[in-house]
Amino acid sequence: MSQDAAGDATSEGDLRNTGMSLRHDREWDYELERIIEEIEEKDAKKVGLQFPEGLKRRGPAVADDLRALAPDDVTFMLSGQPCYGACDLDTFLMRRTDVFVHFGHSPMKNSDKIIYVPLFSNVDPFPMMEEALEELPEDDVGLVTTAQHMNLFDDMKEWLEGEGYDVHTRKGDDRLTHEGQVLGCNYASADIDADQVLYVGGGKFHPLGLAMEHPDKKVVICDPVNNVVTVADTEKFMKQRYGAVHRAMDAEKWGVIFCTKIGQGRWEMAEKIVDENENAYLITMDEVTPDRLRNFDMDAFVNTGCPRITTDDGPQFHKPMLTPGEYEIAVGNKPLDELSFDTFHGTW
Amino acid sequence: MSQDAAGDATSEGDLRNTGMSLRHDREWDYELERIIEEIEEKDAKKVGLQFPEGLKRRGPAVADDLRALAPDDVTFMLSGQPCYGACDLDTFLMRRTDVFVHFGHSPMKNSDKIIYVPLFSNVDPFPMMEEALEELPEDDVGLVTTAQHMNLFDDMKEWLEGEGYDVHTRKGDDRLTHEGQVLGCNYASADIDADQVLYVGGGKFHPLGLAMEHPDKKVVICDPVNNVVTVADTEKFMKQRYGAVHRAMDAEKWGVIFCTKIGQGRWEMAEKIVDENENAYLITMDEVTPDRLRNFDMDAFVNTGCPRITTDDGPQFHKPMLTPGEYEIAVGNKPLDELSFDTFHGTW
Repeated sequence: MSQDAAGDATSEGDLRNTGMSLRHDREWDYELERIIEEIEEKDAKKVGLQFPEGLKRRGPAVADDLRALAPDDVTFMLSGQPCYGACDLDTFLMRRTDVFVHFGHSPMKNSDKIIYVPLFSNVDPFPMMEEALEELPEDDVGLVTTAQHMNLFDDMKEWLEGEGYDVHTRKGDDRLTHEGQVLGCNYASADIDADQVLYVGGGKFHPLGLAMEHPDKKVVICDPVNNVVTVADTEKFMKQRYGAVHRAMDAEKWGVIFCTKIGQGRWEMAEKIVDENENAYLITMDEVTPDRLRNFDMDAFVNTGCPRITTDDGPQFHKPMLTPGEYEIAVGNKPLDELSFDTFHGTW
Repeated sequence: MSQDAAGDATSEGDLRNTGMSLRHDREWDYELERIIEEIEEKDAKKVGLQFPEGLKRRGPAVADDLRALAPDDVTFMLSGQPCYGACDLDTFLMRRTDVFVHFGHSPMKNSDKIIYVPLFSNVDPFPMMEEALEELPEDDVGLVTTAQHMNLFDDMKEWLEGEGYDVHTRKGDDRLTHEGQVLGCNYASADIDADQVLYVGGGKFHPLGLAMEHPDKKVVICDPVNNVVTVADTEKFMKQRYGAVHRAMDAEKWGVIFCTKIGQGRWEMAEKIVDENENAYLITMDEVTPDRLRNFDMDAFVNTGCPRITTDDGPQFHKPMLTPGEYEIAVGNKPLDELSFDTFHGTW
């Protein structure tokens, strides 16, 4: 099946939103009762609700349902900040509310104040997994998925074993909550002893990162949301990366971005670059956007924040934007063949 | 002289950037020595620099100059956050630096950690003030200007008195630093006993706010930056405001925006609206943009943050956006003829 069959609503090369062109209607369990219990237990008066971009539109209805159940004197507040992961908590709202509910992502780090509501998918992955088998000819297979499908992870593993596979799974590092879970910035769960990995989940955002991080493995995408099976192809991305590195080789003035989002900061990395390069300038911001960087007269940028902004949105910026590893290549500290995906470790 | 002669780079009706199409080269005094003294006195290791949008591009060169003067172990950090006033401090950077320098705005509230560098203009206002006299036929005249021209305010007043005028000036409320100063959101300095007010400064952003706030006064714009004299005409804006109010009258679901920027929050106002309207939802964010609001399925919005986003950017949003006063009209709590400019008082 061709990649086009995935029904991407986004333009080619822009893979940020591929998970959002849904063929199936999804029903989510917002775990209202667990939230209400916590509100009552803490006698909370201000409650913050944060949804990822694709679900923000559901926010008011969830607030309605909670209002109907909660004591009258509770004020619910919806976060209007962009949100792209558990790395991206609305810390302003969190500080100013008694209970803060973060929907759609698994905990990157637990806190008494935060309720994480995972929003598990109700999609049945097994029919598409059946189709994916023909792309998995070897006996050993890795299995990974996203937070949305974690509720079925053990069943998926068992199913594959029933098909005769030796299934390799792993809990990544402490940035990840669950065994077999991947994030857009971390594929440590695929550091397993198999040359083929089955990714089960919606869209290509995660499996393309996985394939960039593990270029030696065949990454089979089983997408039960859009009903497609494909094999991850990173060629376009890798060409963009090499292109960006080469264009940045002549740069004199470097903007070094330190992202202020709670789970996207790598301060030592940013400070080291600035300390060692007198033509480097430290720039801090939360949302890293083309508009904001256009204000700075730099020849190139190094992004120590979210690697997916660099990799996926890179071509939209007016000057080359590199990951910290790519920067080392561009300034001559490392050879070109060390170019690799920028994995993000740790929490905050 | 027609309004077009002002050489606006922006589209008609979008007056945010009119001060940025400059005919004169400006030279700024960044007060490097004052900053270095403070760094040395506090033995600061981390120094944050925040520039308004129009001057962000100068940031790296200012950082270079400061690096050359400061001890070697000082790290300078440039704020990459948008910045539209002293109401809009980069509180993340401020908290994480030993000294925080805010350029281009006068203090809204002083703090030991913040150095405000006002960046006074070197433009000579008097030739254009001479031209403005023919628009000022009465004996009494109010005089206002922006932070950039404050260094010449006393001279301007004296010059007008020399021309035979009775010059009325006033320090507004505690949101304003200087006698005769205006902000985009506060024109209390023009609450004076004169039917004509002379505004001296670049662009139309401030005088149009002034004319909306004081519709009974003739506001003469003396712009020594773009070399034009005009009379403020708010007709287009007022039509937009009435249009937005009327379109919002049928709204059922209201999004009530609470802005999280340090000097743009009006919590009681936002909470009151939400408490009294069961179809109102409180939404918190820092940058209030069309993209962010498009995520919420609302019929209309009330913006308790910066009134100029409502007034100047309003037409760019997909649903009507009202000021809190306009909201009261739209829901029938007040008559239409109470429509007025949304002045922002106080600090934080």
